[in-house]
Amino acid sequence: MISKNKFILLVSFCLTFNIAFTQKTLDRISVKGNSFINEKNDTIVFRGYNTSDPDKLEKQNQWKKSYFKEIKKWGGNIVRFPVHPSAWTERGKENYLSLLDDGIKWATELQMHVIIDWHSIGNLKTQMYHHDRYDTTLKQTFDFWRTIAVKYGKNKTVAFYELFNEPTMYNNTLGTISWLEWKEMNEEMITIIRANGGEGIPLVAGFNWAYDLTPVKENPINATGIGYVSHPYPQKREQPWEDKWTEDWGFVKQKYPVILTEIGFSHTEDEGSHQPVINDDDTYGDAITNYCDEKEISYVIWVFDAQWAPKLFEDFETYTPSRHGKYFKKKINSYNYNKK
Amino acid sequence: MISKNKFILLVSFCLTFNIAFTQKTLDRISVKGNSFINEKNDTIVFRGYNTSDPDKLEKQNQWKKSYFKEIKKWGGNIVRFPVHPSAWTERGKENYLSLLDDGIKWATELQMHVIIDWHSIGNLKTQMYHHDRYDTTLKQTFDFWRTIAVKYGKNKTVAFYELFNEPTMYNNTLGTISWLEWKEMNEEMITIIRANGGEGIPLVAGFNWAYDLTPVKENPINATGIGYVSHPYPQKREQPWEDKWTEDWGFVKQKYPVILTEIGFSHTEDEGSHQPVINDDDTYGDAITNYCDEKEISYVIWVFDAQWAPKLFEDFETYTPSRHGKYFKKKINSYNYNKK
Amino acid sequence: MISKNKFILLVSFCLTFNIAFTQKTLDRISVKGNSFINEKNDTIVFRGYNTSDPDKLEKQNQWKKSYFKEIKKWGGNIVRFPVHPSAWTERGKENYLSLLDDGIKWATELQMHVIIDWHSIGNLKTQMYHHDRYDTTLKQTFDFWRTIAVKYGKNKTVAFYELFNEPTMYNNTLGTISWLEWKEMNEEMITIIRANGGEGIPLVAGFNWAYDLTPVKENPINATGIGYVSHPYPQKREQPWEDKWTEDWGFVKQKYPVILTEIGFSHTEDEGSHQPVINDDDTYGDAITNYCDEKEISYVIWVFDAQWAPKLFEDFETYTPSRHGKYFKKKINSYNYNKK
Ligand SMILES: [Mg+2]
Ligand SMILES: [Mg+2]
Ligand SMILES: [Mg+2]
Ligand SMILES: [Mg+2]
Ligand SMILES: [Mg+2]
Repeated sequence: MISKNKFILLVSFCLTFNIAFTQKTLDRISVKGNSFINEKNDTIVFRGYNTSDPDKLEKQNQWKKSYFKEIKKWGGNIVRFPVHPSAWTERGKENYLSLLDDGIKWATELQMHVIIDWHSIGNLKTQMYHHDRYDTTLKQTFDFWRTIAVKYGKNKTVAFYELFNEPTMYNNTLGTISWLEWKEMNEEMITIIRANGGEGIPLVAGFNWAYDLTPVKENPINATGIGYVSHPYPQKREQPWEDKWTEDWGFVKQKYPVILTEIGFSHTEDEGSHQPVINDDDTYGDAITNYCDEKEISYVIWVFDAQWAPKLFEDFETYTPSRHGKYFKKKINSYNYNKK
Repeated sequence: MISKNKFILLVSFCLTFNIAFTQKTLDRISVKGNSFINEKNDTIVFRGYNTSDPDKLEKQNQWKKSYFKEIKKWGGNIVRFPVHPSAWTERGKENYLSLLDDGIKWATELQMHVIIDWHSIGNLKTQMYHHDRYDTTLKQTFDFWRTIAVKYGKNKTVAFYELFNEPTMYNNTLGTISWLEWKEMNEEMITIIRANGGEGIPLVAGFNWAYDLTPVKENPINATGIGYVSHPYPQKREQPWEDKWTEDWGFVKQKYPVILTEIGFSHTEDEGSHQPVINDDDTYGDAITNYCDEKEISYVIWVFDAQWAPKLFEDFETYTPSRHGKYFKKKINSYNYNKK
Repeated sequence: MISKNKFILLVSFCLTFNIAFTQKTLDRISVKGNSFINEKNDTIVFRGYNTSDPDKLEKQNQWKKSYFKEIKKWGGNIVRFPVHPSAWTERGKENYLSLLDDGIKWATELQMHVIIDWHSIGNLKTQMYHHDRYDTTLKQTFDFWRTIAVKYGKNKTVAFYELFNEPTMYNNTLGTISWLEWKEMNEEMITIIRANGGEGIPLVAGFNWAYDLTPVKENPINATGIGYVSHPYPQKREQPWEDKWTEDWGFVKQKYPVILTEIGFSHTEDEGSHQPVINDDDTYGDAITNYCDEKEISYVIWVFDAQWAPKLFEDFETYTPSRHGKYFKKKINSYNYNKK
C-alpha cells in the first residue's frame, strides 16, 4: 500500500524533474554562409534519424518517450518527422498537432532538434502523386505551413521546416512542372512561414524525388536563411558516386547549407527492398558518410522503424539493429561533436 | 372561435395587401460618371445598414419583415446582406437562396435597395482566409456570382453585387497576391455576372481588408458601370483622417462611384470591441459622415445586430440603439433625400 | 432437370467459345499524315455509334453483350463511351473501370474499336460546367487520363482518348478561357497519357461545344499522332453548310485526321429535341455524310439509346430505329469498307 504522503512526494518529484527537463531548451539554429550555426556561432553538422509517421507509430503504441530515448542511444542530434498529408487529413489538424506536441517535447528533453517534413511525393502543380497517401493540394500545403509556423514558430527545438518531401514528375507520369514554377511555390511557402512567425529554417528540395539540385546553380530560391535538401539513395546514380553527387547536389554546399534528409540502403533480399535504395556490396555507407563528413553536409537516416523500408531495427521490443541499422548506429555514435 | 368566413376574409385581405406591396418595384440603379443614378437620372447617394448574415438571423428567428421595418425606421435606403461562404456551403444553395428571396421581397416592400455581399476575408489566390467561416475557392466564388446573376439579375431591388468583401494578405500571413492578379479575378467575376444576365452594379474592393484603393490610380478595373468599395474603420489610419482617406481611397470618387460598405465604431470597453473599429473620443462619426456628405460618397453601417460588433442595438426585443447606434440612427434619419 | 454432364459440357463449350473470341485482338490504330491507319498501313475511316453512359446503361441492365451485338448489326466499326465525370465520381474509379472492362471486351469480340470520352461540358479553367453532372477539376481530369493510360494503354481496341468532350464558355456564362490556355491543358493531358503508356490516339476538341477548330490554323496542338474533333450538329450553322463547315473545322483535315465524335438530328416534335440538333427538312443526314465520305472524315452518331436525345431506337426490347436511327442504320450499313 502506498501512503498518501509518499504518493504526493513521488508526484512532486516527477513534476520537478519534468520541469527541469523541459526548461533545458535547445539553441535556435540559423544559417551563416553555407553552414547551420547555433547561438554561440558554432557550426552544427546534423546526423540523425527519420521517425516513421507519428500517426503510424501512435497507432502501434510506439509514439512514446522510450522510442526517442532509443534514437538518442543511436547517437542522433536530430529527428525528422515525416507528416503524410493523408494522415494529417484523416486524423484532423488538432489531433495531429497533439502528436507533434509530444514528439517535440520528448526531443527537447533529449536535446535533439526536429525537422517537420511535409511528406508528399509528386507534383503539386498537377496535383498528381505517387500514391493516394501523398495526396494534397497547394491550399492544404500553404495551410499546413501556416499552422506549423503559428504553433511552433518560436520553438527552438523545431529547427527545420522541410517544405515538400519529394517533388517529382516521375518521368512525366505525374505531369509536368518547371523549376521556375516550383521555385515560386517554395518562395510563397517561405513567405507564409515567416509572416506567421516561423523562425526555423525552411528546407527546399529539387526534382527527381528530391535528388536533383542542378537548377539551383542558375536559379536559386529567392530567400535568405534557407537550406537545400537531397535524397541521394544508392541507385540514383551508378558507382563511383562522388563526382556525380558533386555535380547533382554537392556543389550547392559551396554557397548554401545542405542536408540529406533521407539516406539509407538495403540488400536486394531484405524485406521491402526497392529501387533506389539497394546497395548489395555495402559500399554506400562509407561513400556517403565520408562524402558528407568531408564537406560538413548534414544527413538523416531513413527510417527508425521495424516495418518501413529500409528499416533500421528488427522489432520494437528489442530495437535490434538491422543490416544498415548496425552500420549507422556505429557510425553516428562515432562522431564526437554529436555527444552532449 | 374564428368563423370560417372571417378567416377567409382575413386571408384575402392579406393576399391583396401583399400583392399591392410587391408590385411597387424600385428603380434600376446604374452608373453615370462618378455617381449612382436612378431611372430618372437623379444622383442617388446611399446610406443604410448591414444586416448580419441572413443565416445567423434565421437561426435566431430574427430574419423577418419586422427586422426590415426597424431598419427602415433607422432611415436607410439600402441594406447589405453579408453572405458568409461557410453559411452558403452548409445551408446549401437552394436553402440559402430562399433566405435571400425573403430579404429581397421585404426590402422591396420597404423600398430599400440591396447589396449582395460575398462575405469572405482573405486571399482567393492562396485560398487562405482569416477564419474557416470565410473559406471558399475561386470555383465557388464564380459559381456564387453565376447563381446570383441568374436568379436576381433582372431584379431591380438587387442594385449591387459586392464581389468579395475584404481581400487581404494580412501582412503576408495569408500569402501573397498582386493587384494585377486580383484585378483579373474581379474582371472574370464581372464577365460571368453580366453574361448570366446580372444587370446590377458590381462593386470591387482593394487590399488591406477592403481599405486600400491606391492601385486603382494606375490600374483601374477594366470594366464600365462598376463602383469601388472601401471599409475605412477608425483605426485604419491615425487622426486627422481626411487627407489620408483622400489619398487611400477618396481620390477614386473623382472618376468612379464609391461606396463604403462597412463603417462604424465602438469604445474600447464596448462588448466585442476590436482593432480597427475603436474610436474612444467619438470623433469618427462626424469625420466620416461629413467627408462622405461633402463628396457624395455612399456608406453603409456595420452592423444591424445585437451580438456582432460593433452592434447597432442592444436586443432584438426593443432594438434600443447602442452607442454608435444612437449616432447613426439620428444621422441617417437627418438626410432629406433618403425620405420616401 | 439438367444433368450434371450436360451442364459441364455447356460450360466448357462457352469457355472455349469465349476464349476463341477474346483472342481476336484488333489492329493498333495510328496516325499517318492526315489519316488514321491500321497495322497494314490501310487508311481507316471510322463510322459508328455513341453508347449512352455505361453507368446509365448498367443501371438499366442494358450494359451487356447483346447491346453491342445490336450496334454491330447497325454497321459500326467503332463505339464511343461517354464517361460522365459525375458517374465516375459516384460509382468510384474501380467500379467504373469494371464497366469499361466489359465494354472493351465486348467491342473486341465484335471487332469494333473504342473511343473513351471524358464527357464533360464547360470550362476547365473556371471549373464551371453546363450542369452538375459535368462537374470536374483539372486534377480529376489529369487523374482520369493517367488511370485510363495505365489500364488500357496497350489495349489495341481502345483506339482513341477523347480528352474533353465539349469545351465551352457558353457565351461567357461559364467564364473565359483562351485557346492558348486550352491548348496547354490538352498538351499536358497528352504528355500524361503517353508517359503512362497510353498508345492510343488523343483527340482534341475546340470551343463552342466542340464545334470550332479555327484556332488550329494558327496554333495547332504541339504534339504528333493526334486527331481533332468537331460536333457539327445541324443548328451550329445555317444552311447551306458545306463552305462554313470547311471554314470552321473541315480545313483541319488537310493536315490532320478529323473525327466527328457526335453527329445526329431530330425533328422539332421529337422527344427531347433541342437546339442545336433540330433539322426538320431531313437534309442534314445526306449533307454531313456526303461531306465526310468525300473527305474521308470519320464520324460517330449520337446516341445508341432509347431515352437520351436524339435517340437512335425506340426501346431496348426491339431496338426499333427512330427517325434518325433509320437514316443512319441504312447509311452506315451501306459502307463496304466497314464490313468485316
Ligand atoms: Mg521529377
Ligand atoms: Mg523517400
Ligand atoms: Mg492585405
Ligand atoms: Mg469587416
Ligand atoms: Mg454533345
